[in-house]
Amino acid sequence: MGPQTNLSLYLVTDRRLSLGRSLEQVVEEAVRGGVTIVQLREKEASSREFYELAVRLKQMLALYKVPLIINDRLDIALACDADGLHIGQEDLPYPVARQLLGRDKIIGLSVENRADVEEANLWDIDYIGLSPVFTTDTKTDTAPALGLEGVRELTALSVHPAVGIGGIHPQNAGEILRAGANGIAVVSAIMSAPDPCKAANELSEIIKQNKK
Amino acid sequence: MGPQTNLSLYLVTDRRLSLGRSLEQVVEEAVRGGVTIVQLREKEASSREFYELAVRLKQMLALYKVPLIINDRLDIALACDADGLHIGQEDLPYPVARQLLGRDKIIGLSVENRADVEEANLWDIDYIGLSPVFTTDTKTDTAPALGLEGVRELTALSVHPAVGIGGIHPQNAGEILRAGANGIAVVSAIMSAPDPCKAANELSEIIKQNKK
Repeated sequence: MGPQTNLSLYLVTDRRLSLGRSLEQVVEEAVRGGVTIVQLREKEASSREFYELAVRLKQMLALYKVPLIINDRLDIALACDADGLHIGQEDLPYPVARQLLGRDKIIGLSVENRADVEEANLWDIDYIGLSPVFTTDTKTDTAPALGLEGVRELTALSVHPAVGIGGIHPQNAGEILRAGANGIAVVSAIMSAPDPCKAANELSEIIKQNKK
Repeated sequence: MGPQTNLSLYLVTDRRLSLGRSLEQVVEEAVRGGVTIVQLREKEASSREFYELAVRLKQMLALYKVPLIINDRLDIALACDADGLHIGQEDLPYPVARQLLGRDKIIGLSVENRADVEEANLWDIDYIGLSPVFTTDTKTDTAPALGLEGVRELTALSVHPAVGIGGIHPQNAGEILRAGANGIAVVSAIMSAPDPCKAANELSEIIKQNKK
């Protein structure tokens, strides 16, 4: 991950939450509003659909110099020449993913507890995702919420930059950053916002005010 | 695909049909009975489970010098160093898959009609899967059955070796080969057989009697 990679406002997509708007449209508005990095997450699409969507998003995001990260599917990341891959504990093992993607791509890993962070500390990963910070309706297969205390504990333990995810919105974004996170990741706070550009801009302002 | 690759008795796995036995056990018995190539197909496993199963199968099949083909997931094929990948019309586009896998790996493509075969003829694919030959309960998202007439028409049109799949069992295997197929692919005829070794052996004998 280059020193210029900005994890501060990290959008994770979910087409089911886009209120009927196209994913590309919502993501582009969000980027205009200040999103700094985008993760494409597709759990139900065919490989062909996922690939075609990834290619379109990659082209659009390149115009804004915003990196595209692919969730789970290393083949889709390779096929669209994404900037990186985000993996969870149920996805490919990190060392396998790094070997296949090479050192030039960003790889992020979701961690849920101290043991996950300690394992991640042994690896040259680019960032960790602290998941979930708060309870959320967006993802139902998650571990217990970490809370602010968990964010403090795990960011202190981690040697890597950390992004919090799960139940984050403008009212709690600042305290997550003050607890030690380098960035906040959101899904519904932007995907389901009536005005994704404005929602991203509001979060972006909160980030500026709470920068470490 | 090396000239030694034998497509004649092609097993496609389905864990749901293995009657509670482990996939590795059923596949190993089937290979002992005469299966010449194995495709690992997992539509519900996490990437981690798929990867770990693929690594175990690859190790076991290497002992028998039987190639392992991964269904759809090019990342899993790379991660376990499989012998090849099988893609359908809803998976990664063939040219993208070939570029990522290189010329040394086997790539097969499912075709359902003349247009698919004509497109496949333009590519350096290793084999086509004619799908479905007959109606089947195993896969529910299929095109109309080709029948023997379809097998004759599409194998005559194809420049690539062809494997028939869908509703194949000992009573109809011979006529599919006589209609022009180079091999038969089965799922439940072996996965759900009380004795997978014996089931494979019976099909293997039919193949020998109907070789072109």
